[in-house]
Amino acid sequence: MYRAIYERRDVRSEFVAKPIPDEVLEKLLDAAHHAPSVGFMQPWSFIVIKNRETRQTVHNIFESAKIAAAEIYTGDKRDIYDNLKLAGIVDAPVNVCVVCNPNQTRGGGLGRQTMPETAAYSTVCAVQNLMLAARAENIGCGWVSILDTDELKNILGIPVEMLVVAYLCLGYVSEFKTQPELAELGWEQRLLLAETVFFERFGAKDENAAFFKTAADKEK
Amino acid sequence: MYRAIYERRDVRSEFVAKPIPDEVLEKLLDAAHHAPSVGFMQPWSFIVIKNRETRQTVHNIFESAKIAAAEIYTGDKRDIYDNLKLAGIVDAPVNVCVVCNPNQTRGGGLGRQTMPETAAYSTVCAVQNLMLAARAENIGCGWVSILDTDELKNILGIPVEMLVVAYLCLGYVSEFKTQPELAELGWEQRLLLAETVFFERFGAKDENAAFFKTAADKEK
Repeated sequence: MYRAIYERRDVRSEFVAKPIPDEVLEKLLDAAHHAPSVGFMQPWSFIVIKNRETRQTVHNIFESAKIAAAEIYTGDKRDIYDNLKLAGIVDAPVNVCVVCNPNQTRGGGLGRQTMPETAAYSTVCAVQNLMLAARAENIGCGWVSILDTDELKNILGIPVEMLVVAYLCLGYVSEFKTQPELAELGWEQRLLLAETVFFERFGAKDENAAFFKTAADKEK
Repeated sequence: MYRAIYERRDVRSEFVAKPIPDEVLEKLLDAAHHAPSVGFMQPWSFIVIKNRETRQTVHNIFESAKIAAAEIYTGDKRDIYDNLKLAGIVDAPVNVCVVCNPNQTRGGGLGRQTMPETAAYSTVCAVQNLMLAARAENIGCGWVSILDTDELKNILGIPVEMLVVAYLCLGYVSEFKTQPELAELGWEQRLLLAETVFFERFGAKDENAAFFKTAADKEK
């Protein structure tokens, strides 16, 4: 399990054409379906997309969104951005669109009166299970968020009241990179664990720092 | 990894007092920190809470929220609700509040112009990693969403512009139940996988149903 967590990568460029057998795909979806959900509401549904024409149409709206998003970048950042491959929608033989029904009555609303966003969050837990199961099966997964979700709903016949939580590209890969691609290309680096942890109150650090004695070694 | 996924349970009642060693807690947090994040933005921070007085204060706001939320339930559902133990905030020796900075500039906004909610979603991926790592370490975890997050921010000194994504109770347990507690108590049952999967378009089922031949067996 730790290997799946540490060796999972967001994949955009290394997909190969080899199909994913149905029984393997089903294992991934079943792992997703066994995520926790607030009030056991199971608000998720998964649209499996193999049709090449559909994937091409989704790729087209991705390309438009990618170009529109480019405008905030200048200089070196723009150079890197223009060369980033940000999705493998057509290369990956299987796409999965993960949808949440935020008004799902299953589970009786338990735990959602104070935090209604936990419907979407439960669905993200399912996505993370799916991504880890994919890694365990040596299947690469890329999460595409550069998409206009209204256009995506239109393409896939998703009712307007639903939330599109994730659009995933799945396929076997030529390799899993040892580091995140965005780190390799100099876009962003991983924080030290110690930079993300506070004690007792937001912003409060561990005074003796003993807590992180092993983390420093691990981050080398 | 599949065992962690299938045997993970949301724990509220079975916590024991045995402390979690710092090096084990660090493993859980490091697993969380290795979640995927859009643009590699790593928008998360983790507040580790062991102080009993703090946990008692959080428990008090949970109790108020639980009572307020009871009002929508009547009859049998209300009977079950009133007997549900919905949090182990004081029983669990460690609480972790997971916070997201939705305006984090790290990662240069990559992938967030179209879907800004992916900052929170990345943080949920970290939560799911933490819950799975906890299960692998035989540590129970309960996610409490029956909380007023403004009050929680006040207690923990969390700036108003941050998002509280999850409040987790962590500790060793007397047992992991074989089924979700809400299923055991008759609150809600697990869907068949087939009920959650569509093909090519939202709402479209697999005509020959061959895809789910193994799922039917598994759900028994």
